[in-house]
Amino acid sequence: MDKVTKEKLIKSAMKAIHYAYHPVSKKGVGAALLTQKGNIYQGANVQSVISGLGSCAEICSIYNAVAHGEYCFEAIAVAFPSAKGARPCGACQQMLFEFSEVGQKDIKIICVNEKGKIVEETSIKKLMPKGYGPKESGRDVSGYRK
Amino acid sequence: MDKVTKEKLIKSAMKAIHYAYHPVSKKGVGAALLTQKGNIYQGANVQSVISGLGSCAEICSIYNAVAHGEYCFEAIAVAFPSAKGARPCGACQQMLFEFSEVGQKDIKIICVNEKGKIVEETSIKKLMPKGYGPKESGRDVSGYRK
Amino acid sequence: MDKVTKEKLIKSAMKAIHYAYHPVSKKGVGAALLTQKGNIYQGANVQSVISGLGSCAEICSIYNAVAHGEYCFEAIAVAFPSAKGARPCGACQQMLFEFSEVGQKDIKIICVNEKGKIVEETSIKKLMPKGYGPKESGRDVSGYRK
Amino acid sequence: MDKVTKEKLIKSAMKAIHYAYHPVSKKGVGAALLTQKGNIYQGANVQSVISGLGSCAEICSIYNAVAHGEYCFEAIAVAFPSAKGARPCGACQQMLFEFSEVGQKDIKIICVNEKGKIVEETSIKKLMPKGYGPKESGRDVSGYRK
Repeated sequence: MDKVTKEKLIKSAMKAIHYAYHPVSKKGVGAALLTQKGNIYQGANVQSVISGLGSCAEICSIYNAVAHGEYCFEAIAVAFPSAKGARPCGACQQMLFEFSEVGQKDIKIICVNEKGKIVEETSIKKLMPKGYGPKESGRDVSGYRK
Repeated sequence: MDKVTKEKLIKSAMKAIHYAYHPVSKKGVGAALLTQKGNIYQGANVQSVISGLGSCAEICSIYNAVAHGEYCFEAIAVAFPSAKGARPCGACQQMLFEFSEVGQKDIKIICVNEKGKIVEETSIKKLMPKGYGPKESGRDVSGYRK
Repeated sequence: MDKVTKEKLIKSAMKAIHYAYHPVSKKGVGAALLTQKGNIYQGANVQSVISGLGSCAEICSIYNAVAHGEYCFEAIAVAFPSAKGARPCGACQQMLFEFSEVGQKDIKIICVNEKGKIVEETSIKKLMPKGYGPKESGRDVSGYRK
Repeated sequence: MDKVTKEKLIKSAMKAIHYAYHPVSKKGVGAALLTQKGNIYQGANVQSVISGLGSCAEICSIYNAVAHGEYCFEAIAVAFPSAKGARPCGACQQMLFEFSEVGQKDIKIICVNEKGKIVEETSIKKLMPKGYGPKESGRDVSGYRK
């Protein structure tokens, strides 16, 4: 990922913060997912008043990419609403892990704080070196590699 | 909703079927959400190998709209992969109900079968006349009406 | 369901309120599920700080029953923390609908308010007359009828 | 955890496999959660036909403990239906992480294969050294330490 793309990805994640629907926590998180084809899909957290519904920004950006027919990802930038930033939660890591098997490629993770400053650069393979995805569960996902 | 918009909405839902990620059930569902501003956001079902993760097409289209800063909806078309079609599941009804309170308007639901034929026209207020949303839980969502 | 069982079920749901884990909303909901074998399983809402994780009390009581090898249900009592009470959310209705197909029997729903007063008596077939469950999706669940 | 308790915990997880409700994947997973008070709560995976609903065995065992008023955990044994075994998924890791903050103690994780043989012994702090829980989100959970 070149510097220009990286900056564009981070800006996109920062922008998405303002789109978050968070009537419960009042804390917006933004995400921007870069696909292997070079497209960027945004996501923002969506909160339900019901426990178990709603979604983090990262998962939302994955769903957005899928809704446009893309399944193979390169990198994700996530903008968290605090100075220290944060990391994708376990559920988001799980989904990123599954799609890293679809795309047959590790997915870079860039975490930025509320000011857009990078607080951590990692990858799904680093956060989840041994996971359970379509491969481990015997599901064929080769048809999504296009 | 005029006839042209309705046909466009149904076509969009039909198109989204082909974008679904469904390594588990092999059954794609497509959705298209019309916002009060007149924009259409697509959604397709996304299946995780983990119980409790993943999303129906309808919810996916809502997340897609939120990721673009829209929270007030007019209608949703859902394309189901069978001759008889189907209805949005309970979780999708719940999310539609919550956003009908945000948008202060009932949301039309158009269910079509795998060939695009309308099998049912209903609305979230008809399916869920008495629900639990942000209003009932005391959450202020007036800021999302823009 | 005789009067004694009904009162026991409501008491059990009321008791479960106090077990709820709700660091986010501070509102506890309790549920008690009566199986066709006559056993009662409690559930309380569990809130994650992550959107999309956690569970309502009703679903929790279903999981509790499953964890004990029971899948066929008769009735559920739900105790809501307000004078007006409430109804099971869409996600809970969906799960109850699915298990009503497993148990081949409608499931009674008794909603009580914070004082244990019945505010509504209904059933999953009434709330969701046309749903999408294992039958509609072609899954054989006859093995769970024991 | 002494040897007897550990064996009891593993046996309980093995037993729970047979209670799983898995009309979709036909693969049962069992879990047994040991609380700081020394009680064991079982969990089995529950599959919905709807993407996004249902639960893994580990989360189910946590909900079961909460439904009995326990929030502080010591260890969890998980029995996976394969020779190689597996690890708790990201969503389960997230929930275990949150409750490790409630209980102010790392939670041991014992993964066994379909024959009950230990394939991995780890802990939530090892799998998720830096997570996002009630502490990071500013939620007070001290009231659940009892």
